[in-house]
Amino acid sequence: MARTPTGESVLARAVRVLDAFTAAEPGLTVGEVARRSGLHVATASRLVAEMVAHGLLERGPGREVRVGVRLWELGARASPTLSLRDAAMPFLEDVHAVVGHHTQLGVLDGDDVLFLERLSARDAVINYSRIAGRLPLPTSSSGVVLLAHAPRDLQERVLSGPLRPVTPAGFGAAAALRTALAEVRRSQAAVLAGHQHPDATGVAVPVRDGRSDVVAALSVIVPNDGRGRDLVPLLLAAARGISRALRRPDEPGS
Amino acid sequence: MARTPTGESVLARAVRVLDAFTAAEPGLTVGEVARRSGLHVATASRLVAEMVAHGLLERGPGREVRVGVRLWELGARASPTLSLRDAAMPFLEDVHAVVGHHTQLGVLDGDDVLFLERLSARDAVINYSRIAGRLPLPTSSSGVVLLAHAPRDLQERVLSGPLRPVTPAGFGAAAALRTALAEVRRSQAAVLAGHQHPDATGVAVPVRDGRSDVVAALSVIVPNDGRGRDLVPLLLAAARGISRALRRPDEPGS
Repeated sequence: MARTPTGESVLARAVRVLDAFTAAEPGLTVGEVARRSGLHVATASRLVAEMVAHGLLERGPGREVRVGVRLWELGARASPTLSLRDAAMPFLEDVHAVVGHHTQLGVLDGDDVLFLERLSARDAVINYSRIAGRLPLPTSSSGVVLLAHAPRDLQERVLSGPLRPVTPAGFGAAAALRTALAEVRRSQAAVLAGHQHPDATGVAVPVRDGRSDVVAALSVIVPNDGRGRDLVPLLLAAARGISRALRRPDEPGS
Repeated sequence: MARTPTGESVLARAVRVLDAFTAAEPGLTVGEVARRSGLHVATASRLVAEMVAHGLLERGPGREVRVGVRLWELGARASPTLSLRDAAMPFLEDVHAVVGHHTQLGVLDGDDVLFLERLSARDAVINYSRIAGRLPLPTSSSGVVLLAHAPRDLQERVLSGPLRPVTPAGFGAAAALRTALAEVRRSQAAVLAGHQHPDATGVAVPVRDGRSDVVAALSVIVPNDGRGRDLVPLLLAAARGISRALRRPDEPGS
């Protein structure tokens, strides 16, 4: 591949530029892009101009640039998660309509849960994850479900690393997390009260594909009033519906 | 930017590689990638390997590669359409729950309508557009709504080009399309019976932002039974809700 004089490939730099943009700050000046991506301003400026020419970035109002619709399209159109998301969507809508709170679909990606979809509560308890948002596995109910069914070496790596709980209720000790993972495998659900926010409880269950492998977590974020566990049967039933739709992709929601 | 010996930039080639993947064929061999992107197999092979290293592509089962979850994340996380989609989603869900057919949100992109979101009917009439799917503006109700409110030069370019109707009911003559665009501006809705499929009617209305500019089209695909127009008031009310949410992004669905 063509490389810049410093030996780093253009693609590597382009990925660093794209990584500078976040949901909280979708618009950045070239100077901000340079600082966040660790590139010289002149290099960032040339790269941004070429990325704009290909639609990977767009120039916004003022001096800002942002992620381009074209990049979104290239990533979304043939995404490996599209069939999962399509199969899940009718059931996410049903859960959302009945429960009335944030309803999410997350997958394992590295040491995080990556949220493919979130239907927001109009009257939300808290509001932390967005589409394509990430949370470290041990801090969220979806993450704990995915970790409980993850390969053993990933479990051990997470258990042996710093857990970094978000609230005092979160998992700070490996022993507590290990017990929780075993409980999730036994009960088929993670109910985490106050782990992300004192006022919220996360309730998550696994979604299995046609080979019974866990491929996603279905979750809701509800008020921290001690009634989160009551929603587990509803979520388990919806997760079974998603699994059925995954086995028969031509009959969504069947 | 670093360029290959033929003068084409690495980024340009990477975009061509990504463009080879479609919703219908999300997994391709390196040979297929080379053929579709017009690159030599050796060049495609090196580029694919580097894109896999950065997570822009993933190796699937067998010899296939596909779009990577990382690319989806980079495109979705800070997408300029995310706030529009977030504002629209509760209203899309309401329309979908009440109407029970495909419900879509589309934006203008070049000479196409690009669909940001589609909620599928469980019992669908037809099934043509997906997330990040595209249709030429004059062939779809969403496209006609967006074209009716597009800059004059885009309207004239589309009107002067070949219209390529999909069915005999579609717009084949510029005069018919010009009349339809004026009617859409007057009535605030496009109702196209049988333009994409003989059994389906598309019904679309404009979505306006806080400055009253048309930024999207809200549409449903219903059976072609002559009752499509009855849904226009429902869609117009939902579109007003989306506009209100766009003006107040902190109160989704408010």
